[in-house]
Amino acid sequence: MFEKFQPRIPKEYEDTEFLFLANIQPTLQANVRRKMNGVKLTGCDTMNYWIQGARKELAETLKLVNVLLINDTETKMLADEKNLPRAAQKVLAMGPQALVIKHGEYGATIFFREGAFGIGRHPFRAPTLPLDEVKDPTGAGDSFAGGFMGYLASQEELNREVLKRALFYGGVMGSFAVEDFGTKRLQSLTREEIDERFQIFRELTHLE
Amino acid sequence: MFEKFQPRIPKEYEDTEFLFLANIQPTLQANVRRKMNGVKLTGCDTMNYWIQGARKELAETLKLVNVLLINDTETKMLADEKNLPRAAQKVLAMGPQALVIKHGEYGATIFFREGAFGIGRHPFRAPTLPLDEVKDPTGAGDSFAGGFMGYLASQEELNREVLKRALFYGGVMGSFAVEDFGTKRLQSLTREEIDERFQIFRELTHLE
Repeated sequence: MFEKFQPRIPKEYEDTEFLFLANIQPTLQANVRRKMNGVKLTGCDTMNYWIQGARKELAETLKLVNVLLINDTETKMLADEKNLPRAAQKVLAMGPQALVIKHGEYGATIFFREGAFGIGRHPFRAPTLPLDEVKDPTGAGDSFAGGFMGYLASQEELNREVLKRALFYGGVMGSFAVEDFGTKRLQSLTREEIDERFQIFRELTHLE
Repeated sequence: MFEKFQPRIPKEYEDTEFLFLANIQPTLQANVRRKMNGVKLTGCDTMNYWIQGARKELAETLKLVNVLLINDTETKMLADEKNLPRAAQKVLAMGPQALVIKHGEYGATIFFREGAFGIGRHPFRAPTLPLDEVKDPTGAGDSFAGGFMGYLASQEELNREVLKRALFYGGVMGSFAVEDFGTKRLQSLTREEIDERFQIFRELTHLE
């Protein structure tokens, strides 16, 4: 059903350096990636529907991806492994240099392939906490991805510390997204509010 | 059914300074607390069964408790409120100075009553991450409580920073408990292993 559809990239997007492949049929994601020649980092989302129904196509796409952003269930399903850290290692062996596992209201954990984005032993977790009312969870995952990719795009160098901070900004943006319907809260958001919440999330997990 | 049972405290336990009331009928918990005159801090666990079936008795017990340790579902049920931070505030208004909400594999969050254990604006979260195999989740909550209370008992002063660290030690002990059946892993555990995992959990959430 997707064979006839070939996405066209508008000319002004062709030299994009930070590409996020939102959740859609994996071969379409791969086609878009192959058309973008100036990309420095590709992020990618997917879901249970493709993991179960288009596993082979998804495996091809994952070879083109730097950071995969999925949730706990999707990670375990993709790896066919119930232990999360072990499942993460299996997913990293499929292609991505880093795997972001989104835990919903509990934040997200990033696992790095050995040697990717510098040296380090362990995964990293950034928290989230809905501080005001949760009105509408729709778009929380995409807002997370937006905060994560946007922070990366603002940085000169891509190393583990930068990816860890990006994980915090993902959580921050996701927590704002759920505070109102649709994109309403994000449209009125100021840089000061983002910085303030980043500090709150930092204090939420940092010992003195 | 509990009216005839009066727990007796062995003489050598009477001057205990750190008391943990494990999950049992709330009036029994209160009776034990009232018999212990040298207590500096009381921790308390409970469950959905008592929240639903002995709410009035539990409310009396909570007035005698410094730190309540329960999970997300129990917090929302006890407060009759679906938003977790708001539910936490309602539970704190029932008596405890601090509320530890255990999130299972995602760690735990501590909420403080305003002004309790010093000054601070926000809650604090400590992570957990099962690093090896999860063989048996039985006893994870009690091991968490043991690590939390044990760390507090080792400290001269009880302030927010100490309670935050105690939350980390709770997560550390819970993560060891699930690695083998029953108390097997905890029996072979060394101080070095505990310190090493504390460092891993610290690195898991700390930005440089």
